[in-house]
Parts: sequence; structure tokens; C-alpha cells
Amino acid sequence: MTELAQKIIAGDRRALARGITLVESQRADHRQDALALLDALRTSGREALRIGLSGTPGVGKSTFIEAFGTFLTDQGLKVAVLAIDPSSTRSGGSILGDKTRMEQLSRNPNAFIRPSPSNTQLGGVARRTREAVAVCEAAGFDVVLIETVGVGQSETMVASMSDIFTLLIAPAGGDELQGVKRGIMEIADLILVNKADGELKAAATRTCGDYAGALRLLRKRPQDPDLFPKAMMVSATEQDGLDAAWAAMVELSEWRKAEGHWQKNRADQAVHWFEEAVKIGLMARLEASDAAQDAKRAETDAVSSGTTSPDAAAARVLDALK
Amino acid sequence: MTELAQKIIAGDRRALARGITLVESQRADHRQDALALLDALRTSGREALRIGLSGTPGVGKSTFIEAFGTFLTDQGLKVAVLAIDPSSTRSGGSILGDKTRMEQLSRNPNAFIRPSPSNTQLGGVARRTREAVAVCEAAGFDVVLIETVGVGQSETMVASMSDIFTLLIAPAGGDELQGVKRGIMEIADLILVNKADGELKAAATRTCGDYAGALRLLRKRPQDPDLFPKAMMVSATEQDGLDAAWAAMVELSEWRKAEGHWQKNRADQAVHWFEEAVKIGLMARLEASDAAQDAKRAETDAVSSGTTSPDAAAARVLDALK
Repeated sequence: MTELAQKIIAGDRRALARGITLVESQRADHRQDALALLDALRTSGREALRIGLSGTPGVGKSTFIEAFGTFLTDQGLKVAVLAIDPSSTRSGGSILGDKTRMEQLSRNPNAFIRPSPSNTQLGGVARRTREAVAVCEAAGFDVVLIETVGVGQSETMVASMSDIFTLLIAPAGGDELQGVKRGIMEIADLILVNKADGELKAAATRTCGDYAGALRLLRKRPQDPDLFPKAMMVSATEQDGLDAAWAAMVELSEWRKAEGHWQKNRADQAVHWFEEAVKIGLMARLEASDAAQDAKRAETDAVSSGTTSPDAAAARVLDALK
Repeated sequence: MTELAQKIIAGDRRALARGITLVESQRADHRQDALALLDALRTSGREALRIGLSGTPGVGKSTFIEAFGTFLTDQGLKVAVLAIDPSSTRSGGSILGDKTRMEQLSRNPNAFIRPSPSNTQLGGVARRTREAVAVCEAAGFDVVLIETVGVGQSETMVASMSDIFTLLIAPAGGDELQGVKRGIMEIADLILVNKADGELKAAATRTCGDYAGALRLLRKRPQDPDLFPKAMMVSATEQDGLDAAWAAMVELSEWRKAEGHWQKNRADQAVHWFEEAVKIGLMARLEASDAAQDAKRAETDAVSSGTTSPDAAAARVLDALK
């Protein structure tokens, strides 16, 4: 693994792709190699700015990433784009599977676009993407964009592997405004109102004001400097506001680094994923036991229909495992 | 346990208090009896309206519960008040420990007030309170109010044992508004702006409008009829708006019952607590192993400082358990 790690750190694109394929592999015999690779890559000491980006279909996420990614490479930065696609757990399909979505960026030598891994479990997709982020970081990318659509738990997962979490929304008027998933304002560092151009400019201004107002209702978090989280307007098609959005991200990340929140956040995230991995490993033992699985199915029905209490049911499942 | 269950179902107040003490007991030999009691009480088939209520210190939570509880008993309803106090995990103290906080209600024969159980773990407090809710329900209370202060995960826990979750807030002006914990608007069914009286009336009207606007930005949930979740004004000291708040709660719960959301929510909550109990039981096995605990401490340090990957660390902890 040391050789592959060295090639990745040296900037070899084919080694990078092979490394990501390895951490994404579902074969049990690849897992040991993947963990060894990640430990070897850790020696690079490199850190990218990890930017999480969420938005529902139709907000112009691909167009924004294309424009923003190109803006960043124009500044001399190297940009990787990864994705977590919650729908891939069902369909096997993946967002970003079609690179023509971001034609310009995908041909850019300073950009690297990787489709979402497909997997049967969202938790598994998240682990693989988190490890792919670490591979890109060691490969010397300055910015890693992690994209997701706003479905289920995927935003929380992206936020828990990002330094900055950005929510992209579309302008809307009046009753159309019920578009933001509950819980998302909780984790957003930056809300970007896209399509602030042409006919939609006025609606975008109103929408931006509405979200700025809603953000002010929330209690301040320790990891936020004054005026953050904030709502801003951008136009991906006119490439307008991208510089201001990037300046806000840099300001936020530099403040967090200076105040110690950056490192603390990364350490907390790593411990969180570690604890999750322990829980998943314990649950896997339960899942490997036919007796426990039979008990769990029967007890779930009993609990759901109200014929037994959750704790009594859980005790019986645990007894079946022993 | 059958005799105690029969007395509780018959409305015996001392049996009720004994039943709750039993489910709250931390003694391992009481646990079997507690589970048997809960299964026996389940035969009553009674259902209360479980109302979760959260608010930061200073919003007038005690005054509201006193006024609202008295309003409900005046309608001929029997009301139980329980609490989850996240601070009791540290201090051993408890909110509602001092019944003089609600002097009038505590003397009311149709009301029952129980202080928050103290425990070393918030998860443990939540389980005990959830079971105390079931005991009160079997005892024939029409409404069970479950109170918490807005700290940590306690609101989510209260919401996951409530049919309706209510957030109580105080009026404020301009920059003072940063009072709502992130994530709470996600779970609120009703936001009540308290102290809508005297000098604060105008500020309450503005605050109520601000929250109504913020709620409109959120995507509609399947379990909400038109115009819900909503923000309303109340004055606990002037007993103003309590009837409208209660009418909204009744409207919401009847709609949810008619549409099947009520039963589905209760079944989902029971399954959630069951799955949590299984996880907690599995984690308890890890905690009972000295070798696994030693490994977990060492690996947490390594993960936190970035010298190993979360998954490699987790694999070593699980190996130590085996």
C-alpha cells in the first residue's frame, strides 16, 4: 500500500482513482488494504478545505458546482468533487455518474470529479465517501466539494465530514417557499440563494432576506463569528457572487482555524465516526446471528402493535444473541 | 405486579406514585418487576394526549404549566405533569423537584406532578420518563404534559415520546432574538409566544410574526394539516390564549387520528425506543469488558489526534471485545 500511497501523494491521477476504488470496494479482503492505505496517506499531513453542499433537485446544483469549481481553479486551486447520493441505495444509480453534467469542469486538469458510490446502506456510502475525501486530501487538492441532494439523513452525513456546510436554494415567491427540509438550517454555515439573475433577481432578493431573518432567530453557536451563518445571493449562470461566496468561506474557515474550532471540529468528527463504526460493528454481530434476527423481527412487530414494551422486547433480542 | 397494576388502573394515587418509583428505580432486581408492571398496565387500553413542552429558562414555563394545567382541569380533564431535566445528569437536582413552583396545580385533585428522575445518563432519564408516561396513561389521565428545558438532546427525547410537541418562547426585540436552539423548529408542532401581555404585547406580536414566517420556510411534513405547525400568542399570567392553544392541540391531534398519523407515530416511536434499547444493551456489553474499554480509550485518543482512521480504530476495539 505504501507504493500506491506515494503515487497518490505525488499527484498521480490514476493512482488516485485506484485508491478511491479500493476504499469504496465492498469486498471484505480489500478492506484491510484500504485501512492500510488510509493510514499511509495520513503521513502526507495535507489538509483541504472540505465544503459540504446540499440542495434539492432543481436549484441548479450542477451548474453551481461547474461555475464555482471553475472559479476556484481560475484562482490556481485544485478542486475535487465527490457526492453522496441517498437514492443510490435503492436504484443503484448515482448522481454525478454522468460527467456531462459538468462538462467544462470534468475536462479541467485541476479538477477531479468522482460519482457517488452505490451501496445498499446509506451508512456504508457515507463511510466510503468520507474515506475518499481523505484520499483526495492526501493527493493535494485544496478544496474538496462534497455534494448531496436534500433527502433523508444525507445532509447530516455530509455535514459531519465537512469543515463548512453550504445549502443551495432557489428563489421562490409566497406559498412556494416551503422548500427547506426541517433540520437543515440547524447545520448550515452558509445559505446561497441561486438564480439571482434576470426575472428571478427580485424573488431571490426577497428569499435571501427571508432566510437571513430566519437565521437570526436561531441561537448563536460557539463555532460562528459575527454575521455567520449568513444568507447570500449567487448566480451560477452569470457567475455572479461566486467571489463573495468564496470570500465568506475563507473568512469563516480562517476564523475557525484561529479560534481552534477547526481542529476541534475535525477531532470531534473523527471520534463521532469512530463511535459510529463501533456501533455498526456491534450491530453487525447481531445481524450475523439468525436467532437474534428472528427475535428482532418478531419483537419489532410486537412493539409496533403495542403488545409489549420496547425495553422488554429489547431484553429478549439480547438474550437471543447470547 | 397484577395487583399494583389493578390499583393504578383503578385510580389509586399512592399506587401510581409507587408504580412510577418502580420504573424509575436503578436497582437491577427492580427491572424485571417494572417490565412486568408495564406489560400489565398495557391491558388498560387507555390513551392520553401526550404533549411535549420545551422552553429555555425565563420563558415562564412553570407559570404556563400552572395556568394551562388549571385550564384543562377546569374543563374536567385529568392532567399529569412529568419532566426530563438534562441538568439532573450532572447535579442530581431536578426541575419540578420543588412543587411550590406550581402551587395551585399541585393541590388540584385532578392534577399529578412528578419531578424529573435523576440519573447519570440522559438516555436513562428518558427511558424512565417514557415509562412513567405509560403508567400515567394507564391511570386514566387525559393529558400528560412532558416538560424539558432546551438543553442538549432533551427536546428530541421529549418529542420522541409526545403526540404533540410545543415550544414555548418569550417575546424579544431585534438582536435579542437569537433564542431558539437549532433543530428545534424542525420538531415543533406549535410555537407559543408567552408573555403576550402588558408592555410586552407589541414585542410578542412581532416575535409571533417572525416565527410564523420562519415556519413557512420549512417544507410541509405529511403529519401536518393545513396551517400547521403554527405560532400563537399566549399570556400565562392573564390566562389569555390558553383556550385557543388547546383548541389547536385538539384540532391537530384529531386530524392526525383521522388520517392515521397518530397511531403510526406511536408505533414508530415504540420501534425507535426498542432499537435504541437494543443498541444500548449491546453497548453495555462493550462497557462490561475491561479489555474493550481499555482499547476504546486508547483508540479515541488516536482518532482524535488524527494518527489513525476511525474504521481501523473501531476494528481494534471490536477485536478486543471478542
